[in-house]
Amino acid sequence: MRTFNVGIVGVGIVGTGVVKILLEKHSPLLEKLDCVPVLKGIADRNLDVRNRIDLPSDILFTDDVDILINDPDIHVIIELIGGLHPAKEIITKALEKGKDIVTANKMLLALHGLELFRKARQCGKSISFEASVGGGIPVIAALRDGFIANRIESIFGIVNGTTNYILTKMTKEHVKYSDALAEAQKMGYAEKDPSMDVDGIDSSHKLAILARIGFGVDFDYKDIYCEGISTIDLSDIWYAHELGYTLKLLAVAKRIKSAIELRVHPTLLPHDHPLSSVNGVFNAICVNGSAVGETMLYGKGAGQMPTASAVVADLVDVGLGRAGITFHAMKTFSGNCEHISIADIMQIKTRYYLRFSVVDKPGVLAKISGILGNYEISIASVIQHKIKENGNVPLVMMTHLAEEGNLQKALTEIKRLDIIKDSTKFLRVEE
Amino acid sequence: MRTFNVGIVGVGIVGTGVVKILLEKHSPLLEKLDCVPVLKGIADRNLDVRNRIDLPSDILFTDDVDILINDPDIHVIIELIGGLHPAKEIITKALEKGKDIVTANKMLLALHGLELFRKARQCGKSISFEASVGGGIPVIAALRDGFIANRIESIFGIVNGTTNYILTKMTKEHVKYSDALAEAQKMGYAEKDPSMDVDGIDSSHKLAILARIGFGVDFDYKDIYCEGISTIDLSDIWYAHELGYTLKLLAVAKRIKSAIELRVHPTLLPHDHPLSSVNGVFNAICVNGSAVGETMLYGKGAGQMPTASAVVADLVDVGLGRAGITFHAMKTFSGNCEHISIADIMQIKTRYYLRFSVVDKPGVLAKISGILGNYEISIASVIQHKIKENGNVPLVMMTHLAEEGNLQKALTEIKRLDIIKDSTKFLRVEE
Repeated sequence: MRTFNVGIVGVGIVGTGVVKILLEKHSPLLEKLDCVPVLKGIADRNLDVRNRIDLPSDILFTDDVDILINDPDIHVIIELIGGLHPAKEIITKALEKGKDIVTANKMLLALHGLELFRKARQCGKSISFEASVGGGIPVIAALRDGFIANRIESIFGIVNGTTNYILTKMTKEHVKYSDALAEAQKMGYAEKDPSMDVDGIDSSHKLAILARIGFGVDFDYKDIYCEGISTIDLSDIWYAHELGYTLKLLAVAKRIKSAIELRVHPTLLPHDHPLSSVNGVFNAICVNGSAVGETMLYGKGAGQMPTASAVVADLVDVGLGRAGITFHAMKTFSGNCEHISIADIMQIKTRYYLRFSVVDKPGVLAKISGILGNYEISIASVIQHKIKENGNVPLVMMTHLAEEGNLQKALTEIKRLDIIKDSTKFLRVEE
Repeated sequence: MRTFNVGIVGVGIVGTGVVKILLEKHSPLLEKLDCVPVLKGIADRNLDVRNRIDLPSDILFTDDVDILINDPDIHVIIELIGGLHPAKEIITKALEKGKDIVTANKMLLALHGLELFRKARQCGKSISFEASVGGGIPVIAALRDGFIANRIESIFGIVNGTTNYILTKMTKEHVKYSDALAEAQKMGYAEKDPSMDVDGIDSSHKLAILARIGFGVDFDYKDIYCEGISTIDLSDIWYAHELGYTLKLLAVAKRIKSAIELRVHPTLLPHDHPLSSVNGVFNAICVNGSAVGETMLYGKGAGQMPTASAVVADLVDVGLGRAGITFHAMKTFSGNCEHISIADIMQIKTRYYLRFSVVDKPGVLAKISGILGNYEISIASVIQHKIKENGNVPLVMMTHLAEEGNLQKALTEIKRLDIIKDSTKFLRVEE
């Protein structure tokens, strides 16, 4: 039985899961492989962790990460502290010391991935990061290896469990946003400060990683359009439902002429779209490839053991030598891939859901649809119920394909009409 | 740019797809990799194929497979002729001549997989077979690599596109079996002799492959329980729908105490189960792992380009050297894995849907439920409409968990009652 030695930096929830798998006596790894990872050392600034995880005495526990990095007996460093610093410095130093890296750090890879890949190439080492997107779902492997024969056309996904939990609760239990968020916090699905999740930032990190692997290009992360779910109104979920659509926070990557679309925003999907039935903390990513067509990968997008499952899969990939081969054969990881611009959100073309709050008198629909028409936006369907709020009625429309720039101009013009009360809501659609 | 040379044996629908990808001028492979496959030769007994695929003159075309196998310049043989013979002999000879193998041959692997794996090990070569199950869906890679840290508990799947097309048509368009089959044949989704598909045999081949990789065990293929869809009645689809279930042909693998369940049969799934919304020719496989939890992989399970996508992914895996590493590190491919028995269908425990055809008089329900009760089968719900067929009425029940042996005994006893007319239908359920 061959072995290879592993050091873990940061033993929080996911790290504890990885330790569990590696120390399990009847480990599936032992059953399945003739080459298995051996946990050599753990570094964590919180020394109390040691007691919590009941570590055998032959495993080094330290609060000094350099001890692991400088240990020539350790072949792979698993970075699980998250955030930009000192994670970036630790990975860089570990690469320089000849260690392969396994990480779940989506923020770091989204913001500094290319620089780290270049460093790894220079050092003849690899960086593996299956756990950074979609928890235990092997989506990075699918984009990188399984769909290698494809030109990837688009990647759509629900890649944040917290927001999907909140939206599912709003949709199924008719609970308003603030209550659904409070419940998610109580269940431990949302942080005290939930902004990384609910503002779509976490999804945009994951989208950046998926798009780099899928399209094999680089771009400016800051140009990704990002809109969260905190302003979603229950009534929009209901009206959309009536029109045949389910609301999800989607991360969308599309290849268009000489640019790519990268955007995170609440999105309406037809009820029979496979992503519409992805509920609660589950994640799912749809990949459309030139040969394979439409695919979807579904599973738990976060949590201790699902994420640990992906970390250990990466670890085996490194230990067997496959990760190094992949990393050095793929142009994506060269640190020098083609730089492409992200299309401005004003240029995208989708269908739109619109909800106006209007006064209840004749001619309203004609005025609004007239202005939309002037901007080449035609209406596919309309809902107008007799529900009054402060004397106003909601007017809900679904448009045909339209350019967002035109829509925004039309909405600005419509806003000035005296028949319009309150702000107008709009939601993008994917079919 | 490194290259490796490939020979294809059998250029039917899938083979043509592979040739298309390999000869594409702006191939994604070239964009993505610094090591690409080069098509060297094709062997097909039908020499007319040559004209159909418009082959460049530097690619050898022959009707003699031995010319490819004996060519020391060819490193990988792709076997796409299907069936047991001469595919088995070709693969064996190619392994002996030092070629790695890529194949989509599910029947051959289901029946002789272990023997071929052993042979490959002896020759220091590998066999890759992602395309054998689920077309372009990377399910073999997921079970083998992505979920390596998991003890796989169960694998459920819709792995046959033909039968899923037929059942979807029956469900959505209320078309009876024979008409749906005729339509599938017209569309080219079903063969003239559809028995491999509709009798569940193709699904059982794929199930055998999935279970071997997922559970890392061997078993007698012939012990897999296999029941097709040709006796499915439209009314059962309707009643099941009313009870909240969708009918699918499922391949089911479950780990139970000291044995495994392997079975293919029409199965009822709750409407909100992710497999319930897998329609038409799409396939999907749910894998439950000890760490990753519930996952699902979804995509086109057959067809030229999706299957070619998987073949070429395997080819890259071989060319980069990863396939060889995997094949020799995994105990599953040693040819000597643990032999386990498949549980008899009489021992399985599921819920059951039952439809009796009974005379319309008092006491019928009491008699039937009395006998079921004697065999420890309790009833969860009942539907009885006033529809009469030849003076009889259908009585539909959903049971709680029951053992199939008990159910069969109860049904035998119930059959003897004079209130029972026509045959009784039963369907298994998965939640």
